[in-house]
Amino acid sequence: MRRIRIRIMPKKGLLDPQGRAVEEMLEENGFKVKGVRVGKVVEMSVPEGTDLKKLAEEYVVNTLIEDYEIEELAS
Amino acid sequence: MRRIRIRIMPKKGLLDPQGRAVEEMLEENGFKVKGVRVGKVVEMSVPEGTDLKKLAEEYVVNTLIEDYEIEELAS
Repeated sequence: MRRIRIRIMPKKGLLDPQGRAVEEMLEENGFKVKGVRVGKVVEMSVPEGTDLKKLAEEYVVNTLIEDYEIEELAS
Repeated sequence: MRRIRIRIMPKKGLLDPQGRAVEEMLEENGFKVKGVRVGKVVEMSVPEGTDLKKLAEEYVVNTLIEDYEIEELAS
């Protein structure tokens, strides 16, 4: 088994209402932040040979509105 | 400004119902995954000198149930 992390972010150029909400909340609390984007991360252990592209694109990521990256973790 | 990423995961040992749901869904679709955990990621640009610990722990992370890590991104 190897441990992987799928990091999923809203596509560039698409609205990110959750990011916008966090940004406004932080600004109201005195932080001068910009460009806040909120995404998801899914970590899991998978057997060698798992079709990660299929797993990610068919079951985990909404590729119409999200981009993703897969990282290999030290397991 | 520098660009940072806050990666937030449910604390080890705590239930992660969302991870459990993803795991079951993947298993039902033939993937032999284990230990699925679902977390969040928040990326933002912040001015030099921003108190990131305060920002994260008081406003973004629920430290009772979540662990977090901050990464510096190439901006």
